[in-house]
Parts: sequence; structure tokens; C-alpha cells
Amino acid sequence: MLNSFVYDIPTKVYFGKDQMNHLGPELRKFGTRVLLVYGGGSIKKTGLYDRVAEELRDAGLSCFELSGVDPNPRITSVAQGANLCREHGIDVLLAVGGGSVIDCAKVIAAAANYDGDPWDIVTQKVPCPSCLPVVTILTIAATGSEMDPGCVISKPDTMDKIGVYTQAPRVSFLDPTHTFSVGRRQTACGSADILSHVMEVYFSRDYSMDMIDGFMESMMRSVLKYAPVALAEPENYEARANLMWAASWAINGFIEYGKIQRWACHPMEHELSAVYDITHGLGLAILTPRWMEYALSEQTAPRYKQFAVNVLGMDAGLDDMEAGRSVIEALKLFFYDKLGLESTFTEIGIGDEHFAAMAEKACGGSVLNAFRPLARQDIENIFRMCL
Amino acid sequence: MLNSFVYDIPTKVYFGKDQMNHLGPELRKFGTRVLLVYGGGSIKKTGLYDRVAEELRDAGLSCFELSGVDPNPRITSVAQGANLCREHGIDVLLAVGGGSVIDCAKVIAAAANYDGDPWDIVTQKVPCPSCLPVVTILTIAATGSEMDPGCVISKPDTMDKIGVYTQAPRVSFLDPTHTFSVGRRQTACGSADILSHVMEVYFSRDYSMDMIDGFMESMMRSVLKYAPVALAEPENYEARANLMWAASWAINGFIEYGKIQRWACHPMEHELSAVYDITHGLGLAILTPRWMEYALSEQTAPRYKQFAVNVLGMDAGLDDMEAGRSVIEALKLFFYDKLGLESTFTEIGIGDEHFAAMAEKACGGSVLNAFRPLARQDIENIFRMCL
Repeated sequence: MLNSFVYDIPTKVYFGKDQMNHLGPELRKFGTRVLLVYGGGSIKKTGLYDRVAEELRDAGLSCFELSGVDPNPRITSVAQGANLCREHGIDVLLAVGGGSVIDCAKVIAAAANYDGDPWDIVTQKVPCPSCLPVVTILTIAATGSEMDPGCVISKPDTMDKIGVYTQAPRVSFLDPTHTFSVGRRQTACGSADILSHVMEVYFSRDYSMDMIDGFMESMMRSVLKYAPVALAEPENYEARANLMWAASWAINGFIEYGKIQRWACHPMEHELSAVYDITHGLGLAILTPRWMEYALSEQTAPRYKQFAVNVLGMDAGLDDMEAGRSVIEALKLFFYDKLGLESTFTEIGIGDEHFAAMAEKACGGSVLNAFRPLARQDIENIFRMCL
Repeated sequence: MLNSFVYDIPTKVYFGKDQMNHLGPELRKFGTRVLLVYGGGSIKKTGLYDRVAEELRDAGLSCFELSGVDPNPRITSVAQGANLCREHGIDVLLAVGGGSVIDCAKVIAAAANYDGDPWDIVTQKVPCPSCLPVVTILTIAATGSEMDPGCVISKPDTMDKIGVYTQAPRVSFLDPTHTFSVGRRQTACGSADILSHVMEVYFSRDYSMDMIDGFMESMMRSVLKYAPVALAEPENYEARANLMWAASWAINGFIEYGKIQRWACHPMEHELSAVYDITHGLGLAILTPRWMEYALSEQTAPRYKQFAVNVLGMDAGLDDMEAGRSVIEALKLFFYDKLGLESTFTEIGIGDEHFAAMAEKACGGSVLNAFRPLARQDIENIFRMCL
């Protein structure tokens, strides 16, 4: 049965390679004082920083900066940004970067209007305050943060990594050429993240409209097809564009409306990168095939079969369980051979010393109501399969 | 090559059977004085009118009414509604009905802020004025007007029927149970309209992202599957829900962004219903297979083949032209046998007396840059194939 839902995706998107002239006018709609948020400075190497500065100057905007936002962005960056907003009377945030930078900016936008510890917002100790508007310029196709209200923030001293909803960006600029300079490894990890977002929703016991199932299948086919193309030809516009738009739609809510089942790999991976600070997409790539192996049963196999036929183009005559096993092998081939990512925790220096604690946190001390419900011991088992 | 585009679909949608308690609070965000716009009174028979009145009363809203909006809504209704808005200081319009009612409300919302003849807005003699907010409660899955800015308005004295963009509804309530009472014929015509919206975009020489192609294919499969179910079981929630959500996404812009090619059947049908006041979906059902026959050539056939395989599940070994002919036969079977609609103009009393004039208007006096470009004579030929 289809559950009721509320569709609400207010982000306006400028998609394509010739849209930056709209940046100044869009920002001006919100005011004149801009906080530019970015990461380690790669946007200075690519020339994007200069282009943005020029657009802001031409539009007569005052620009303040928060740079050095880390991958797996930290609550300390959020606090710093919120202080800058209050100090300079910021009207609008401009996040230029990937998911980490955008996540950080979205929590700053909330924390700017809250006098207490910004970690209270992340832990939902207080309701989300009204947010400053956020505009984004995306530089990597991966998290989908450019079109949704989700944010993931880390607190290294307690090894916490927590997701929270604030407010979706008001405007996002998606220019595939801005991802031409994304290296092989980040392209691979980003693609694994996109694929995982769709798989978390697709492998579900909840009812899905046929139209949405078909859309998910076509998104997954796109990632499987275009990620290897982007690796081989980093400046292939078609490949970068297809990955970029798929990334946004994988997690803006559209495919998930009405579904209540919980995700499986993301909660597990968040604990992993909270403790080891590894790249999110890499953790997902290692976890996903093991999770699929662990969840495969006579009850769940028909969904694997549908994936096998509609996404991988396998023979419709396959037996369900056989299809399930073929899907798992095909995914390993994709993540480890085609994308070239490491296939085990051991290879990236992760041992079993924190498995029990991470598993406990991942299931929230109870049972994760996922495709196959996962208790603490199940999650530990899956972690162990990844060694 | 993928063209750049701007994605901007701001409509918030409450989808499902238990959402009406949100109506009052959503309207109140815009003010307290509501103009309720509806059609011939079927909402009084179904009880929806009473339910809406109750919600408005509970929310403390003042309600004024414009009823009697016709199918193929007329500019006279728009003028009447705009006068009511000015006279009563209306804050927000609430359209309860199908595409005609919603289209009419969306033009009223613009005309309320324009002192001249509202037909100037439709003909774009003046730029669209700033619009009052519009909230909708949809009662038939068909035109997609609940989630896009498009409106089609008729002027019977000059036999004009013109499309114009004003502003998308701010909030739409899509409750599949509100379409349970839609009769066989209207369900069939609505489904033909949905299918046509997707086909107009799908059968294109423009570049389409794989993800969007796959989404269109799954939408079309949904209509082909669920329209006959809704005819056989009018209260089948799953069928009504799938048709309803497909209707909105068929024409809210998402599938068409970046495409520049013009539509073919809709311009032809608008002339037809402008002159004969027939139901839009019926006109499309008669025209579509003939248009597809006329457009089939060695150049266009590969797209028919893709449709044959991915939408109709036909054998991938078929020759392209052979696939094209099979698609046309399958569509005739769907429109005329499964949906039970008339298959010729002759059956619905339309002769060739106005063909030349209608064709001239449909191509705008030039050549319609559609899938197969259509000059006046081409359109006349297609009309003649429908006799």
C-alpha cells in the first residue's frame, strides 16, 4: 500500500555550463552580505574562486569567507561560520564545493540564529532554528546535498558523526564542467555514494509506485554506465552531466516519499568514517556487496531479481536466488574492478577493534528496521565480512 | 548534446488520502480571504465541497466563490474571477477541480493584478503581471496543471484556444480518492492526455539523459498498465494514485528541461477543441496514432524501436520500421479498444470543413519544428487521416 507523503523540493537549479552569470542576481535577492564557504582551496587552483569573486563584485555584494571546511565536516567549522554570520550580519551563504562544504553551510545557516552550542542542533536537542538562505555551486557529483535539507556533521573528540535536516539550498548551480577536475578516486567514491543512495531506497519491503521503481532503475543504470566513462575521460560532459543530475535526484526525496523503511549501509558507514575518517563513498563500496549478501533470502530475492533484469539486463529466466548471487558479483565487479576501489577493510587499515561499539551506535541500540532488519550482532557480522 | 536549463518547480504537494487537514493552515499562510473556483458542481455531489467549506470555516477563512468554470475554460470566466478578486480583496485562490478549473484560476491570479482586458495576458500582449497565490485540490488525473505554470484558455467567439504560462500553484492536494468518482470516459480521456504529454517529449530528436528517458518510459508503462485498471475498478487506490502522480510529472517540466523541439499533437488538438469543443484527451487519442504514422521514417524509426522494447516489452530483435508499425497498432489497441474511445473524427461528427484554417493556426503560419517538422499541408494531411 502506498503511504501518504508531502512533496516539497523548493531548490531552484541552474544546470549547465553557461549559467554563472545568474549567480549575482540570485544572491542579491537575499541581500548584499555573503559568507563564502569552501574547503581546502582546490577551487583556487581550478579558477572557480576567481570566477565567483568576479560575479560577486559585479553584483556589488560584500563577501566574507570561511575556508578550510574538511571532508567529514566538523562542528568546530560550523561554530566558526555561525560566529562569522553574526559578526558580519550575513544575509546569505554561498557554499562552493562538494557535500561536506554544503552540509557545513546548511548547519551554519541554522546555527547563525541560535546562541547555544551548535551541536545541540545536530543532536536535535533543540528544534532547528529558522535558517539563513543557502546558495550552492557544486563541484562533485555525490552526496546530493545541493538539493536536499540533509547534513552530516562530525565531532571527532567523541567519534560522533550525525545526520540532521536543516533547510534545502534555495538555489544550486550544477555545472558539469566544474567536476572535470575531480580525480579518479573521488569520482569513483562519489559514484558509489550515488548508487548507494538509490539502492538504499530500492531494496525495500515498502510499496513503490511503478513509475518510481522505473526511475530508480534508470538512475542506477546511468551510474553504472557513466561512472567508468568519467574515469576514462574526465572531461566527458555527457558523463559528468548524467552523474551530476542523478546525484541530486537520488536523494532529494522524490524516490523515497511514502517509504518508511530505514536505510542500512549509510548508518553503518557513518560509524566507520566517524572512527576512521575514511571517504564515505569508499566505505559504502566495501559495505554494500556484503550487506546485500547478508540480506539475501528467499523473501528478499525477488527484488534482487528485478534489479538483475531491469538494471543489469540479466536474463529474466534466472531463478531469484541465483539472480541475487549474480547481482552481488556484478556489484563487486563494478566497485572494485571498474571503479578501482579497495575491496576490504583490511586493505585500508581497518581492524575489528571498534566493531562492537560501532555496531551498537549504527543500530541505535535497538534494531535497524531495514530491508533485512539489523540488530547489533547482524551489523557486527557484516563488518566482519568486510575484513 | 545536452542543453542547459533551469529547474524550478516550487509546488508543494500533499499526496494521499488523509491530507485535507493541512488545507486550512496552508491557505492561512497567504492570508484570510479565499476565492474558491470550481466547475459544474460535481464537487457538491461527491461531498468534497462540504469538506472544503468545513476546513475553511475551521481555519477562520472568508470564502468567496466563482463556480461554473467550463471544460475548455473561457476568458469570460477569467474576467469574472479577476473582478471578484479585486472587489473582495482576495488573498489566495483555491481551485477545486480538474485542469480546466485550475488553468482558469491560474489566469485569474494574474488578471487580478491587471486592469486591462485579461485576454491580453493570454495572448502575451502584456507581460504576465505578478500573480496571487493559487492552491489546488485536484479531482482528475490528466492535464498536470496542478504542478506547472501552464494554462489553456478559450475565446469561443473567435474560435481561439491559446496556451500561456502564468505561475505554478504554490500548494496542491493530490488525493487519489478524489478521482474515484471520475467516470469511464473522463478517466480514459485523462489517461490519453497523460500519455500524450510524455510522448510529445519522448519522440524527439533532442538529446535526452538516459535517466530521463528511463523515467519517461516508466511513466508511459504506468499509464498503459493502470488506466485499464482504473476503468475496470474505479475505486482502485493504487491505480488512481499511479495515474495521478504520473500526470503531474508528465508535464511539470522535469522531463523536458533542455529540450527545444516543439510538440506536435497538442497544437493540432488545441485547434480541434477550439472549433468543436471536444474533450482534449479524446482529440489526442484520435490524433496520436495518425501523427506517429505520419512521422515514421527510417530516420525516426529507432526511437519507435526504443519505445517498442522499453515500454511495450516487444522483442529487441525487431527491425526498426517493423517496430514502428507495431507501436502504432499497439497504441490504436490501447486508445480505442482498451480505453474505449472513438477512433475517428467522423464518429464524433467532425468533417473536413475547417481543416485548412485549423492547420494554418496549428503551425503558426510557418513550420512546427516537431519530431517530424510539420507545415500547414502536413497537418492537414494528418487531420485527413483521422476522418
